[in-house]
Amino acid sequence: MKHFTSVHDVPDVETLIHDALHWKANGRSPKPWTKHKKVGLIFFNPSLRTRLSAQIALQNLGAEPIVLNIGREGWALENKEGVIMDGDKAEHIKEAAGVMGAYFDVLGIRSFPGLEDKEEDARDDILQAFIKYAHIPVVSLESTTLHPLQSLADVMTIREHWQQERKPKIVLSWAPHVKPLPQAVPNSFVEWVKAIDADLTLTCPTGYELAPPHMDGLQVSHNQQEALEGADFVYVKNWSSFQNYGEVLCKDPTWTFSQKHWEITNKAKVMHCLPVRRGLVIADEVLDGNHALHLQQAANRIPAAQAVFSACLKTSNHE
Amino acid sequence: MKHFTSVHDVPDVETLIHDALHWKANGRSPKPWTKHKKVGLIFFNPSLRTRLSAQIALQNLGAEPIVLNIGREGWALENKEGVIMDGDKAEHIKEAAGVMGAYFDVLGIRSFPGLEDKEEDARDDILQAFIKYAHIPVVSLESTTLHPLQSLADVMTIREHWQQERKPKIVLSWAPHVKPLPQAVPNSFVEWVKAIDADLTLTCPTGYELAPPHMDGLQVSHNQQEALEGADFVYVKNWSSFQNYGEVLCKDPTWTFSQKHWEITNKAKVMHCLPVRRGLVIADEVLDGNHALHLQQAANRIPAAQAVFSACLKTSNHE
Amino acid sequence: MKHFTSVHDVPDVETLIHDALHWKANGRSPKPWTKHKKVGLIFFNPSLRTRLSAQIALQNLGAEPIVLNIGREGWALENKEGVIMDGDKAEHIKEAAGVMGAYFDVLGIRSFPGLEDKEEDARDDILQAFIKYAHIPVVSLESTTLHPLQSLADVMTIREHWQQERKPKIVLSWAPHVKPLPQAVPNSFVEWVKAIDADLTLTCPTGYELAPPHMDGLQVSHNQQEALEGADFVYVKNWSSFQNYGEVLCKDPTWTFSQKHWEITNKAKVMHCLPVRRGLVIADEVLDGNHALHLQQAANRIPAAQAVFSACLKTSNHE
Repeated sequence: MKHFTSVHDVPDVETLIHDALHWKANGRSPKPWTKHKKVGLIFFNPSLRTRLSAQIALQNLGAEPIVLNIGREGWALENKEGVIMDGDKAEHIKEAAGVMGAYFDVLGIRSFPGLEDKEEDARDDILQAFIKYAHIPVVSLESTTLHPLQSLADVMTIREHWQQERKPKIVLSWAPHVKPLPQAVPNSFVEWVKAIDADLTLTCPTGYELAPPHMDGLQVSHNQQEALEGADFVYVKNWSSFQNYGEVLCKDPTWTFSQKHWEITNKAKVMHCLPVRRGLVIADEVLDGNHALHLQQAANRIPAAQAVFSACLKTSNHE
Repeated sequence: MKHFTSVHDVPDVETLIHDALHWKANGRSPKPWTKHKKVGLIFFNPSLRTRLSAQIALQNLGAEPIVLNIGREGWALENKEGVIMDGDKAEHIKEAAGVMGAYFDVLGIRSFPGLEDKEEDARDDILQAFIKYAHIPVVSLESTTLHPLQSLADVMTIREHWQQERKPKIVLSWAPHVKPLPQAVPNSFVEWVKAIDADLTLTCPTGYELAPPHMDGLQVSHNQQEALEGADFVYVKNWSSFQNYGEVLCKDPTWTFSQKHWEITNKAKVMHCLPVRRGLVIADEVLDGNHALHLQQAANRIPAAQAVFSACLKTSNHE
Repeated sequence: MKHFTSVHDVPDVETLIHDALHWKANGRSPKPWTKHKKVGLIFFNPSLRTRLSAQIALQNLGAEPIVLNIGREGWALENKEGVIMDGDKAEHIKEAAGVMGAYFDVLGIRSFPGLEDKEEDARDDILQAFIKYAHIPVVSLESTTLHPLQSLADVMTIREHWQQERKPKIVLSWAPHVKPLPQAVPNSFVEWVKAIDADLTLTCPTGYELAPPHMDGLQVSHNQQEALEGADFVYVKNWSSFQNYGEVLCKDPTWTFSQKHWEITNKAKVMHCLPVRRGLVIADEVLDGNHALHLQQAANRIPAAQAVFSACLKTSNHE
């Protein structure tokens, strides 16, 4: 695997899930192609879970992660071609990425959408520039529109909790929030669930449909109660509107996932990527109950990252 | 040892001091129960000496420390039960601690008192929540009211410098400061000195007595000169008032420990936990003299932390 | 090598360049005197390339680097003797350096000039205090007036690209910038080029001559075109005035190094220490061309740092 920026970079999703479960069972076990390899983890926005799980995953591989917490302010990078750099940007992304590519074997990049300009966010200039100029494999640690490391941990968790022969019914259920959040987690979840053998329904208020490519072949219902009937897994998550880009259109508390919602389901396992606002996104009684998988999802971030970094380090030609 | 939050968590103080001296003599020597273990060091307030000594101690054990510098702002954690989280706090401490417990084998937590609300500081919600929800051993890297890693280094230093058969006379001597400081270091020092065979006197201006449990069985004098007579060790330290909680009641410069004070003692060794304000807490001539132990105390923070983390990692059932 | 603060600390420059090239060919190869050694990298100003290259170099040596990013604000150190510390400085540099010396085997220190007081910058109180009080080898990670790790990488890069018998003609060519930059890189470059067998010319507008000791034996021309004739290497760099200390005296865009400038030279290799402002310091066409060495210089920072830290760790008596 050269880069890891979406499910489409993965040659075989089932093999990657299998690898992640294998790493989970084996914990620390460095491979010849991972040992002492240098991996730069570059955060353009703060991160806790992604940073820790990537660091620990790389340590389990015997690799040497170096974390860079870089605010957009702290290291303002120019990414336009042909400009005279006489403003406040001290370095061009060509040099920044070129140097990182010379220093590391693999790079992890965390970028974030501004949620103001749909086209700008879709381009994801930062991630793309590192891919273009670093000349080494790049792993997305969450991009402006996708969060594939989270999604791999999510489908891995579903696989662990589903032994039946029939396809599981999975419902992605929008929830209220106080501020506009990125669409990366739901976009990515949809992509990955489509790649496994499952039946996926999206339920959300009008105006919260995801970006068009993600809606292809997706069952959608604006009636949450109806959608939840018979669900085996419910993935609860807030996101801001794609249509009215970056806006908060609805704060209706009936969308908060509570025990009453759960009772409609087929004793569903309840999922969330964290951080979760209790009482607003999911009720305490659900999070504290036996069907909540959120802590297991978080724990699975480590073996998921091990599987991905191992695969990218294997294809790295860099010494 | 399950947790390490005060002297009362320690099964046998003499054994722990002995272990710390053993680690000091042996430096780096990983044990099967420490090698490659993951330890999170979480700082809710900035730290230099504690962070460095814990990191180096864990590296000497072959463990893998990961430092998290988290301002209260940066990662505002809700710790009340049953609230609807629609304010500025993005994560509940249940999830934060639950995830940390899944990621690490042992956690070190550094919290700090607000010095405004005596009851709130006494509860130390942050430390207690990690103990409750992380389900792994927790080591205090200084709490709102105690600093046991410092105290272990302190009594270890006293042990190195006292070979006589009689009990040493130890005086804890308050000193002036420009701003209100926590009571954690003096509280903890008193607890640990009571656990070794010594004669302890507290000298401070009226109103600077420590919290009641720490005063039990303690000799107190408001006359510094009298208290210092015959002292073998003087631990100089500023702290804010417990009675008039968090206040600075006295700035009297005669409490600054100078050469004149030292001459009253029995050629006392002079101790301070650092950072020390020269000329205000202790005079230059004393700190630059042969009897000052402050740099040795700082150096002993490393083997003290090795003894504690080794003991906690040994009892950790976590893989 | 005890300390590494300038070319004058180096017993034999040719041997050090040879060692750096050897490390480059061998990458990771810990030595008995480097393995598990603790190295503190203390940054009083932010750094990216120096921090990463030093960290990776130390990891390649099997040493254990710990990075401290300390703003002047965050850890305000007193460095005057005999003061009563009742202001905003919580620790004296005597204790700070003393503790670091007890914790580490070697220290790397990054300080920065204020560019307001020539004498203060020349003293470099921070670096000198660590040398005086830490009692272990100190490596400059760029000081107020010199950047020897950069210069070692620079002369190493020149050596790699020059196989002819005659001396190379090297031109240090001033370039415009929007704000006042330190003189550390050009000062240091001049010192190191003088130590190898080369012909060095400085070209800059009037008022941009370097500090007097660096001008000794240096050919200077205020006519850039004339200076560039026949150049084999051009090192392009901005710096602020030494005479009108810290001032920006000239923004003349004809000093920006462009393709036209390059055509005057003897197909010169073009160098810059990075970060470089494209279009202002060097034109895009030059940076994107085949003669630009800036990324190779950046890559050589790693083996250069390996050579220096290895030499300092070898002489360290510290356990």
